[in-house]
Amino acid sequence: MSVFTPVTAEQLSNFLAQYRVGELIEYSGIAEGIENTNFFVRTTTNRFVLTLFERTPEKDLPYFLAVMERLADAGLPSAAPVHRRDGAVLGQLNNRPASLVARLSGGGVVVPNALQVAQLGAVMGQMHLALAEFEHTRVSDRGLDWMAQAGAQVADKLTAQEAQLLESELAAQKAAPWDSLPHGVIHSDLFRDNALFDEERLTGLIDFYYACDGAWVYDLAVSFNDWVLNAGHPANGAVAASLLQSYQQSRPLVVAEREMWSMALRRAALRFWLSRLQDWHFPRDGELTYRKDPGDFERLLVWHREHEVPL
Amino acid sequence: MSVFTPVTAEQLSNFLAQYRVGELIEYSGIAEGIENTNFFVRTTTNRFVLTLFERTPEKDLPYFLAVMERLADAGLPSAAPVHRRDGAVLGQLNNRPASLVARLSGGGVVVPNALQVAQLGAVMGQMHLALAEFEHTRVSDRGLDWMAQAGAQVADKLTAQEAQLLESELAAQKAAPWDSLPHGVIHSDLFRDNALFDEERLTGLIDFYYACDGAWVYDLAVSFNDWVLNAGHPANGAVAASLLQSYQQSRPLVVAEREMWSMALRRAALRFWLSRLQDWHFPRDGELTYRKDPGDFERLLVWHREHEVPL
Repeated sequence: MSVFTPVTAEQLSNFLAQYRVGELIEYSGIAEGIENTNFFVRTTTNRFVLTLFERTPEKDLPYFLAVMERLADAGLPSAAPVHRRDGAVLGQLNNRPASLVARLSGGGVVVPNALQVAQLGAVMGQMHLALAEFEHTRVSDRGLDWMAQAGAQVADKLTAQEAQLLESELAAQKAAPWDSLPHGVIHSDLFRDNALFDEERLTGLIDFYYACDGAWVYDLAVSFNDWVLNAGHPANGAVAASLLQSYQQSRPLVVAEREMWSMALRRAALRFWLSRLQDWHFPRDGELTYRKDPGDFERLLVWHREHEVPL
Repeated sequence: MSVFTPVTAEQLSNFLAQYRVGELIEYSGIAEGIENTNFFVRTTTNRFVLTLFERTPEKDLPYFLAVMERLADAGLPSAAPVHRRDGAVLGQLNNRPASLVARLSGGGVVVPNALQVAQLGAVMGQMHLALAEFEHTRVSDRGLDWMAQAGAQVADKLTAQEAQLLESELAAQKAAPWDSLPHGVIHSDLFRDNALFDEERLTGLIDFYYACDGAWVYDLAVSFNDWVLNAGHPANGAVAASLLQSYQQSRPLVVAEREMWSMALRRAALRFWLSRLQDWHFPRDGELTYRKDPGDFERLLVWHREHEVPL
């Protein structure tokens, strides 16, 4: 249970009075989420998700909320922030920055099928295009510099073989021509648990708190690793083809991206191998139950270094 | 079937290319609606309703779309217009102004229960508050002047008794202190078919094409007549109390409104009696099947003149 900041009904009612969302009926803490405190909130007018930002840097919050708002304006299925009576989308509750977004129906999918990844691919492609001329920028805090630092931090927890793998991959990534790729705003964390489905229908993307500037093909690679390879659908090849084709129906990959596809998959595996190593060896207080095996992404990285995923 | 303007798949695809909504998958005409042409549209990214405006005055469209957008921003369940690539919400298709809105799930309710009208009341109250400082204005085209004109137009179709009822009611309405009531943007046509429910949950309000400035209590009266009295739920009294209480939880009625409650119910009955008389006696081409018996609202008007609905 990750409710870091408790909220009483009275506190919540006072907070909601800053919005035009009616009266509080009920609310409950959401167990998922290791970065922030989230509640499901039902009022007389609608259902919402309330987020109290615990670790997300406050200076980045206007950026994230603007991204979400732009996607909703474009008609893309995604969580849309609610405006307060004064027009702002960012509030304050119990000394935490807080936001209210309309709750999407449905839930996450463990083993996505071809139809489901087709929707994800189409929406991701359109998301990239919808944000192509976004007026705000945010440098990734999980880029190559961070990777080098995280690698140094976990270095003495690695086997000699792992250390060699890390060093070799970091060098390869640094040498790769990332700056020449088409880029824009990317979600950068679009795992299965950040897309909701009501039966077979994608109802929306959530959790934009890692959104940043980046190579579009890297965003696709992050999702490919999780939705296709880690999910392990029996008809893996068909699911892979469905994701790649549907993305390219929205936005065809250019030659430079196709040439970097394998490097993007490796980079995505490396990034999550490193963050999981950090979480594993340097857990934050109260987070032991959320540690995930770093080995999944280590093996994925090794696999990508030895195989080509056809485009 | 009210598709006044046919649209081919090619025309629709070209239209959709102005938005960031992916590729067209399928579309179908919507039978309901006697004012405009509507289509359900499914793309690779989401489901939408496309409206080609046939009769709604073009000059009013920016107002209606701004109302819808403001409500969506406030987190109220309502249809939200999609922005085009150039930022506009109003497009053009086959020489008609056209808009695309995200499709809400669910459908209309024929006999609403207390739980359903409670949501309607709460949302209506919050809708009035959310639009209290709306920067645009629109004079009603179904106000007292229109009523007098419509009455003159249908005069020779009425019995002597009906003519007397009409004359007496018009005089009473003209003499009533409407201008002293709290007012703002009202939907003014929030009948059962303009609110969608997914099971028991209100997913959204639609059809804002009569929205205008008006007395808030009149908006409540329009819905009360339709949702409670015309719907004829067996536990009518409980449904009535639920609607009025839930509205007042969002926005309590002031004394002036309570004193005008009966006049508001009468005015709402009169307005729809007159428009139905017009539609009945002067049908527009191709609309015969949508004529509705004006007698429903005539009887309602008579009833309201003889009874008080407790608040």
